[in-house]
Amino acid sequence: MTVPLLPLAISLGDPAGIGPELIAAAWAVHAEEGLPPFFGVGNRDLIEAAARMRGLDIPVVAIAAPDEAAAVFPHALPVLDVGACPYTPGEPDDAGAALALRALEIATALVRQGAAAALVTGPIAKSRLAHIGFRQPGQTEFVAEACGITAENAVMMLAGPHLRVVPITVHVALRDVPFLLSAELIRSRSAIAAAALTRDFGVSAPRLAVAALNPHAGEDGRMGTEDQDVIAPAIAALREAGIDARGPLPADTMFHAEARATYDAAICMYHDQALIPIKVLDFDEGVNVTLGLPIVRTSPDHGTAFAIAGKGLARPGATIAAIRMAGECAARRAAAAA
Amino acid sequence: MTVPLLPLAISLGDPAGIGPELIAAAWAVHAEEGLPPFFGVGNRDLIEAAARMRGLDIPVVAIAAPDEAAAVFPHALPVLDVGACPYTPGEPDDAGAALALRALEIATALVRQGAAAALVTGPIAKSRLAHIGFRQPGQTEFVAEACGITAENAVMMLAGPHLRVVPITVHVALRDVPFLLSAELIRSRSAIAAAALTRDFGVSAPRLAVAALNPHAGEDGRMGTEDQDVIAPAIAALREAGIDARGPLPADTMFHAEARATYDAAICMYHDQALIPIKVLDFDEGVNVTLGLPIVRTSPDHGTAFAIAGKGLARPGATIAAIRMAGECAARRAAAAA
Repeated sequence: MTVPLLPLAISLGDPAGIGPELIAAAWAVHAEEGLPPFFGVGNRDLIEAAARMRGLDIPVVAIAAPDEAAAVFPHALPVLDVGACPYTPGEPDDAGAALALRALEIATALVRQGAAAALVTGPIAKSRLAHIGFRQPGQTEFVAEACGITAENAVMMLAGPHLRVVPITVHVALRDVPFLLSAELIRSRSAIAAAALTRDFGVSAPRLAVAALNPHAGEDGRMGTEDQDVIAPAIAALREAGIDARGPLPADTMFHAEARATYDAAICMYHDQALIPIKVLDFDEGVNVTLGLPIVRTSPDHGTAFAIAGKGLARPGATIAAIRMAGECAARRAAAAA
Repeated sequence: MTVPLLPLAISLGDPAGIGPELIAAAWAVHAEEGLPPFFGVGNRDLIEAAARMRGLDIPVVAIAAPDEAAAVFPHALPVLDVGACPYTPGEPDDAGAALALRALEIATALVRQGAAAALVTGPIAKSRLAHIGFRQPGQTEFVAEACGITAENAVMMLAGPHLRVVPITVHVALRDVPFLLSAELIRSRSAIAAAALTRDFGVSAPRLAVAALNPHAGEDGRMGTEDQDVIAPAIAALREAGIDARGPLPADTMFHAEARATYDAAICMYHDQALIPIKVLDFDEGVNVTLGLPIVRTSPDHGTAFAIAGKGLARPGATIAAIRMAGECAARRAAAAA
C-alpha cells in the first residue's frame, strides 16, 4: 500500500445532475478524508459553476494532461477539459449527454492506457444517453466493452461499510428472474466475485453467502424448486473449485449484523434482494464496483438526481466512498504488481 | 388506555422448540418491561422444566381458569394446563405437536369468548402439525378460520420499532408472485392494513407506501409491466377510497431512515421484499400481527428454532415485543369500545 499511486480519473456524469457538484464537494474534503489524488474529466468552467452554486469557494484548475494532476491536486481540483456546455442543473439536454459520454470515453481510455490509476464514473441518465445513440444499457457495460470484456463477465458489486452484495441478475423484470438464472451464471459470477475480493479487497479466502430465490429457501421445494435445482448445484461447483460458498440461504435472515459477520459478500439472485439490504444499511455510502475488469472502476451508488441538482442538497458520501475504494483497490493491484 | 385489561393468552408453541422457555423468560422480566398480565396455555410442568433448563428460577403456577391469572401474575407465571408431554427440547414428536395444537385451539377459543384480552401464539413447526392432521398452512390461517374470517381477509403485518411491513403474497414461490398479484388483492389487503393501523395502532390517518414489484418500479414498463398495470390501479382505488397510499415506489429506496419517516406501513409484493428490510432493522424485535380479525393476535417473528431450544440461547426480545404489542392493541380496542 506504499506504492505511489497515479491520480484517479473521475468522469463528470450528466452535467445537469449532481455529478459535477459532488466532484467539487469531494475535493473540498480530500485532506480531512485522506482521499487519494484524483482529477475530474469533463469541463473546468462547469465544475467551477457547480461548486459556486453549492457555495464551495474552491480553486478549480484546468489541466492539459493527466500527468499534471498530481502537482495540482493538493491545492486545487484538477479538471481535464474534454468539451464544454453550460451548467443548467436539473435541465438535462443532448449537449450535456454528449459531454457526459465524451468524459466517460476519455476517462476510461486514460485508465486503460495507464495514465490514471482507476476510474470513478459520475452518474449518467441512461435514457438521455440512449437518445444520442449510446447503445450499451449502462456505464458498466460500456466500460467492460472498452476493456474487451463481455458484459456477462463484468460483475456488479455494491459495497458499503456494512455489507457487500452481488446481484446475479440486475435490470430485468422480476418475472423474468427465475428464467434467467442458471447454475452456470451463478457459478461464474460468484467465482469472479471471489477472485476480485482477493485481488481488489485483500480478502485472502473470501466467504460467499448465496441467497435463495424463494422464501425460506423454498422449504424443500414446497415453495419453488430453483433453490434445489439451480442454486444448490452452483454452490456445489463453487465449493468443488475451492471457493467457500454457502447456501442457498433464506434471504430474510442473511442481513442482520450477526449473519453478516459470517461472510465477505452476499450473492443475490435479483436487484432488490441485493439493493434493499445495502440501501437500508449503507444508504449514503454505497459504492458500485465493477468486478472482473482489467481496470479498477467504481461509482457512487446513486443516479443523476436531477430534482436536487444545483441545490446544495446532494450528499457527497457515496462519491467520497467511491474514490476511497477505487484508490484502495488500485493500490492493492499496484502493490501486487510491484 | 386506562381501561383495565384482561390477561393475554399465550399459546405454548411446539414444546420441543423455544416457545416454552421464552414464555418463562418474558415473565421473568415482566415488571421491568412493564408487560401486561398474561398466562401461558399449555402445561405448567413443561414450562417450569424449560425455565429451569434456562437457569430461570421463577415460580410457575397452574391455574384452572383464565380468571385466576390476574391474581397470580404479579408473583408467578400462570399456566393453564391443557394437556401434558415431557420436555424434550430439540426433539419434536407427534405428542408435542398435539399439545401445541391443543394449546393453540384453546388459547384462540378463550380470546374469542372474551376470557382473555388478546392472543399471542408461540412458534409451531408447520410440517409437524401437518403430520398430525392440521390442515391449515399456518397458525394465521387457523386463527382466521376460528374467527370466521377467510384467509384472504386475514392480513399479515410484521412490525418492529423501526418499520411495519405488509407482504401481499407470502409463502409462495417467487416465480408465482407476478401471477398471484392483482389490483383487487393489493387494494383489499392494503385497506385492511390501513383500518387496522387506525383501530389497533392509533394512527389516525395512516400513510401507506406501496412497493413496486420490479427494479426501479419497472422504469415505465422497460423492466416489467405489473407496476403500471396492477399496482398503480390498486393505489388509485385506495386513494379514491380516501386512503393515503403512494407508489409504486422502487423498493430499494424505501427503507432507509429518511424514507421510513414518510409512511406508517410499507405494502410489499412478496415475502422477502417485506422481510429483508424488517429483519435488517428489527431482527430481535419483530412481531407478526394478524390484521383484520375480530380478536387481537400477535406472535414473535421467529420459528421453533429446535437447534437452540433448551440451551438458554434463544433471545426473548420478540416474545416480549409481541406481548407488549398485543396488550397495546387490545387496550386500544377496549378503550374504543368503552
